Amino acid sequence: MSSTALTFASREQHRAWLREQSALPRGFRVGSASFPFTPFEVPTKPAKMTLTLIVLDEPSRDFALVFTNNAFPGAPIKIGRRRLLEPSLGAILVNNKISNVCAPGGEATAERLCEELSQQLGIAAGAILPSSTGIIGWRLPLEAMVAALPRAVGSLSAGSVLPAAEGIVTTDLYPKVRRANVGAGSIVGIAKGAGMIEPNLATLLVYVLTDLAVPRETLRSLLVSAMRSSFNSMSIDSDTSTSDTVALVSSGRVPCPDLAAFEAGLERVCRDLAEDVVRNGEGVHHVIQVDVSGAPSERTARAIGKSVVNAPLFKCAVAGNDPNVGRLVQAVGKYVGSHEPGLDLSATRMTLGGIPLVERGEFFLDPGKEAELIAHLKGAELYASAPPDDGVFSAAVDFPPHERCVELCIDLGRGSASARVLGADLTHEYVSENADYRS
Amino acid sequence: MSSTALTFASREQHRAWLREQSALPRGFRVGSASFPFTPFEVPTKPAKMTLTLIVLDEPSRDFALVFTNNAFPGAPIKIGRRRLLEPSLGAILVNNKISNVCAPGGEATAERLCEELSQQLGIAAGAILPSSTGIIGWRLPLEAMVAALPRAVGSLSAGSVLPAAEGIVTTDLYPKVRRANVGAGSIVGIAKGAGMIEPNLATLLVYVLTDLAVPRETLRSLLVSAMRSSFNSMSIDSDTSTSDTVALVSSGRVPCPDLAAFEAGLERVCRDLAEDVVRNGEGVHHVIQVDVSGAPSERTARAIGKSVVNAPLFKCAVAGNDPNVGRLVQAVGKYVGSHEPGLDLSATRMTLGGIPLVERGEFFLDPGKEAELIAHLKGAELYASAPPDDGVFSAAVDFPPHERCVELCIDLGRGSASARVLGADLTHEYVSENADYRS
Repeated sequence: MSSTALTFASREQHRAWLREQSALPRGFRVGSASFPFTPFEVPTKPAKMTLTLIVLDEPSRDFALVFTNNAFPGAPIKIGRRRLLEPSLGAILVNNKISNVCAPGGEATAERLCEELSQQLGIAAGAILPSSTGIIGWRLPLEAMVAALPRAVGSLSAGSVLPAAEGIVTTDLYPKVRRANVGAGSIVGIAKGAGMIEPNLATLLVYVLTDLAVPRETLRSLLVSAMRSSFNSMSIDSDTSTSDTVALVSSGRVPCPDLAAFEAGLERVCRDLAEDVVRNGEGVHHVIQVDVSGAPSERTARAIGKSVVNAPLFKCAVAGNDPNVGRLVQAVGKYVGSHEPGLDLSATRMTLGGIPLVERGEFFLDPGKEAELIAHLKGAELYASAPPDDGVFSAAVDFPPHERCVELCIDLGRGSASARVLGADLTHEYVSENADYRS
Repeated sequence: MSSTALTFASREQHRAWLREQSALPRGFRVGSASFPFTPFEVPTKPAKMTLTLIVLDEPSRDFALVFTNNAFPGAPIKIGRRRLLEPSLGAILVNNKISNVCAPGGEATAERLCEELSQQLGIAAGAILPSSTGIIGWRLPLEAMVAALPRAVGSLSAGSVLPAAEGIVTTDLYPKVRRANVGAGSIVGIAKGAGMIEPNLATLLVYVLTDLAVPRETLRSLLVSAMRSSFNSMSIDSDTSTSDTVALVSSGRVPCPDLAAFEAGLERVCRDLAEDVVRNGEGVHHVIQVDVSGAPSERTARAIGKSVVNAPLFKCAVAGNDPNVGRLVQAVGKYVGSHEPGLDLSATRMTLGGIPLVERGEFFLDPGKEAELIAHLKGAELYASAPPDDGVFSAAVDFPPHERCVELCIDLGRGSASARVLGADLTHEYVSENADYRS
């Protein structure tokens, strides 16, 4: 669970807390502009797109970028990889609704947007990172985007990152902002979820801004390391986006008093954002936290945790507050049988919500335990489905009521390595979101 | 699609066809008995269990068994592996409802059932294969099962395999029987689906009976080979059961005129049964058939096909007859990026229902194509959801109306290997089946 254990009684309370989190580090401004457009591919589906801008007062050489490993990366990813070699980064331009992946002329379109923006900001086009999320395969509405740029530039403002956190979302229920204060400076991150999330990376756009002066090479290695326990240890649906991007940018305005404190703050912001993304995953009713220990390697521990949080039958059981824990051993045995058949599971112990389930590879269940397990699952539920009038399920909350999760411990008894993985259940709301209408 | 392309207008028509398929090969009898029981672990959930018996007139040395590779195999699997070394097989005893996996004393309970049955049949206990499907972790109701055995033995009858096909099901909507006639003999298979299905193997119990005389060693190698293109090329939900079993037993009553014809018949029965299992998978509205070609190896082709049919977002899109084909490139790129990052996808071509989607790694979509794609998806739909009164979705059919499927072709343009994989969509009925009440 989060380093801070929060509860919110209402959307207003959550928004007030978000505003507190959102104070921008020095040296940044953000802005956005929305506009209607009609996709070329399905002209019967008019939509609204939002352009979001994150701009540095001065381009900075200190930035780090990590991208999806999907072998069909979007045009912005291909461009972003080139930007890593540029002398500085001055702005990030994000659009939602269309991801500009495998679309004809995609790279040229994105570069053209960067050129237009570069003229308005007075910086090099190569100092602008384009970033897109949304439907794969469709073309960006270039002219409408170009027409909206001046409005986005005109809205740029220091003070709060919240307009950017709100601008980048797609099916997210609420914006996600996390911060860490370090000395006189701060680290502030925003993230966009909410489906096609299995990192290496997630379907994720994450922008972490800091005014603390940390050099480019250090930022790049710290980001890779912070991602291991955050964005690379979570899965909502096992799918891997073609657009995943995590950016870390420093304006360098505040001397960094303590690199270890910066590293700890960065890790905390990334872990909290990763948990926020899972909690606000499409249709998620329960966050599932799996601690795998006693493993021969961290890789094995993480893979077993992922196998559990990606097992559809276990995910459905959790959704129904049904302690069908047999599906849990299925998921562990599936991974081990296919990938590490030499690993002996006869010493395995498992607990759910602290309640012992399995000892030496065998269950010991009884009616009293069943009731306790149900209570743990219900206690971790974020909301229950409301039967829909029109057959389409939609989320019953637009804020996170609490940060409790389903707590699963799996001790293999075969080593000293461990890993924590976050995942989620599989619900009617997930199916409705992804089957009942086009997201 | 099936080697035979069938349509059924009603449950009665499907049952009549099943009865035709069901003539038992010589030398076998089948029977079953059902009884109420109360699980120890959740005594508030009384249930009905069915015991199914398949008995040879004379124990036969010619049998083949293949089991799950899940690393938490059930007690019947552990016993079955020992049975492979026995001189002969005389009977198979199957129960549904509880799978006897990771349950205390599971092996002793299963062996005890074999001993009881051996006395009633007059054969060695070691000649009896126990087989269980159902909830993992619970204990078998031994006394109630022993009490029901004489009734199952008393019901044994030659003629039709249908009582066994009906007895072994759990959440299946209808029994599954396929046959091939070879010379004067036949090969008749029955299968039980319907969730926790990703073979190597599937959550599958399959029993294939033949009167054609084929020696043990030949049977064993032919079964492994027939499984590659059938039960090992399908996935309903990516989960791997702890109980999967495929048995092939010959009574040896009819000389085999032609081993190649036997092999072809066995492959057809296995492929048709595999397709039946997917078509009747939990909540399945669409069967998805993925042909991957132009691959550097068959392993890569099959893995890419599996990645597509296991991608939740693509599965949801198919469920909604939504040609969100971007999710398809996501699924291909996810596998390649994580497992074979050196494989260049820039020559990839894809078609859906014969309609070209992707050329040289880029989409070319237009409004006309969108309409054609929707028509193909709707044409392959087995049934549409009916909004439920009580919030729990259940299948609107209890027979397979047709054998059409969503036809996807992916040509990587990087070699000459290919594979066909079968999968299914992800629907509200799947979630209801697995979340809204305990299966």
